[in-house]
Amino acid sequence: MQMTKIYTLEQIKNIVETMDFSTEIEQGFIAYSNGQVIVPPVGELIFEDPPGDTHIKYGYIKGDEYYVIKIASGFYQNVKINLPSSSGLMLVFSQKTGVLETILLDEGFLTNIRTAVAGEIVAKYMAPKEVSTIGVFGTGTMARMQVQILQSVTNCKRLIVWGRSESSLEAYKNDMEADGYEVQTTMESADVTEASNLILMTTPSSMPLIDASQIKKGTHITAIGSDTAEKQELDTKILHMADIVVADSLTQCQERGEVYKALLTSDLKLGKVIELGHAIKSGNRVRTSEDQVTVADLTGVAVQDVQIAKVVSAALSAVSE
Amino acid sequence: MQMTKIYTLEQIKNIVETMDFSTEIEQGFIAYSNGQVIVPPVGELIFEDPPGDTHIKYGYIKGDEYYVIKIASGFYQNVKINLPSSSGLMLVFSQKTGVLETILLDEGFLTNIRTAVAGEIVAKYMAPKEVSTIGVFGTGTMARMQVQILQSVTNCKRLIVWGRSESSLEAYKNDMEADGYEVQTTMESADVTEASNLILMTTPSSMPLIDASQIKKGTHITAIGSDTAEKQELDTKILHMADIVVADSLTQCQERGEVYKALLTSDLKLGKVIELGHAIKSGNRVRTSEDQVTVADLTGVAVQDVQIAKVVSAALSAVSE
Repeated sequence: MQMTKIYTLEQIKNIVETMDFSTEIEQGFIAYSNGQVIVPPVGELIFEDPPGDTHIKYGYIKGDEYYVIKIASGFYQNVKINLPSSSGLMLVFSQKTGVLETILLDEGFLTNIRTAVAGEIVAKYMAPKEVSTIGVFGTGTMARMQVQILQSVTNCKRLIVWGRSESSLEAYKNDMEADGYEVQTTMESADVTEASNLILMTTPSSMPLIDASQIKKGTHITAIGSDTAEKQELDTKILHMADIVVADSLTQCQERGEVYKALLTSDLKLGKVIELGHAIKSGNRVRTSEDQVTVADLTGVAVQDVQIAKVVSAALSAVSE
Repeated sequence: MQMTKIYTLEQIKNIVETMDFSTEIEQGFIAYSNGQVIVPPVGELIFEDPPGDTHIKYGYIKGDEYYVIKIASGFYQNVKINLPSSSGLMLVFSQKTGVLETILLDEGFLTNIRTAVAGEIVAKYMAPKEVSTIGVFGTGTMARMQVQILQSVTNCKRLIVWGRSESSLEAYKNDMEADGYEVQTTMESADVTEASNLILMTTPSSMPLIDASQIKKGTHITAIGSDTAEKQELDTKILHMADIVVADSLTQCQERGEVYKALLTSDLKLGKVIELGHAIKSGNRVRTSEDQVTVADLTGVAVQDVQIAKVVSAALSAVSE
């Protein structure tokens, strides 16, 4: 009989509060770029009525103790019936026996965390030394988590946030002010690019929100929102003008995300794009001058799920024994 | 917070004892052949040291209430450390919200059941009316389950079983005699084809175990063991000489199983192969004369997992409420 350990979202949230995942996820990206990680193509189910999608991301580091299968779904009309749009779970199996060791009923929470951590790693290696103001496109969960996790990288507490509705901007301002931030809101994207040199893109937009002409020298942009072939937040010319373009996965960015869009329009050659694990493996900053424009395109790689699921499982297991 | 219901193997075994799945799985095959079922390509992870594999089968019937993701692994060296080689689980999600409704920690048990049920359906529509003796290749779990489930189709209690080792043949004989069968064992495949007109292939062989010249008129063969591109239990000429060849999935059988091998050698044209759901949808027997040689090639289709997971979840939920 399997002795599978099962943990709820509440247990996971409690333990994650005290944890830092940046080291393990950095190591994951480096192992991935070194070819030590098996990541098969993403499994996908698409639903039409109501619209929804489910993705299966899975893989393992060769020679590691575990493999991980992550299932995450987005059903965006759930809000109408007072349910979160995201749900899902992570499954941790033994690489030696195939036995299911742990079920993390995280309901999409750990996917958000590992996504935020990727942004943290990118900022650590690519953001300007002096962040004037953090610019944020979007007002949702990732717009909050990204900012909060950046405290490990910058002590800047000034935010300028762009959104499409007054009410969501107001809610964001209230929440983040309560968290100690100074928050300016706007519905003009030029206000953000003018005031900020570290910009976080966190919307599900399918149209560019920033034009290349808006970008000032010394700006870093982390693009998180676009993770499909349809979504896009940046003018493709921004990737053309940027001094450095980093993507979390060279394979995935040819099929989805900002790099994909820029490759389509020929505003970008793939040879210019550096895979994140390669960019950071020396331990040196990727930005080599404070004048450079840098862009990181994050579409989410299964190795992030593998790493966070392993670490959270081990921590929960240690506490419950 | 999700209210996911979780059931153990013990709970699942208890309830399955009293259940019959043939109607739901028949309907699943018919829906599949009618194009009403979404079944993406099988997800796969392969391990080398120790050797093992994990498969993710998933899908849904359009317009149905649920979708199902099934994970099953085989680590064949587990026996050395007293663990079963198979493990896994089934996950049942709402098609309306993406919420994870039920986890069935079945450890591969329901995969065995749904595989046995496919054999039951095939026998119902294709076996000769008078079964003289049931012939069984293999002495493992499926060699037992297949025979037991056939009680709904034939009252024949005579078995002739082929195996590679005296000890496994002896164990099979003892177990099945305790279950009321009359069992003859052999290590000569001709003994089986001579004595039996309903033959079940349940081995993981990668070499043909029966030659076309052995097959008598009126024989039906259900080939269950080969579910990859490597495995093979039947001489490809058997599919050539057969009057009727049925496969559970025309898509899958072009990549794996007996049909795949026969297509490779040109002993079979795909146009001759009838998909199971098409073959049975009229409700009439597929065999139209007692002289015909018929073959069914089963590689396992996700719609079987979808159907069994739904029915078992509903039954467990009704009992526990």
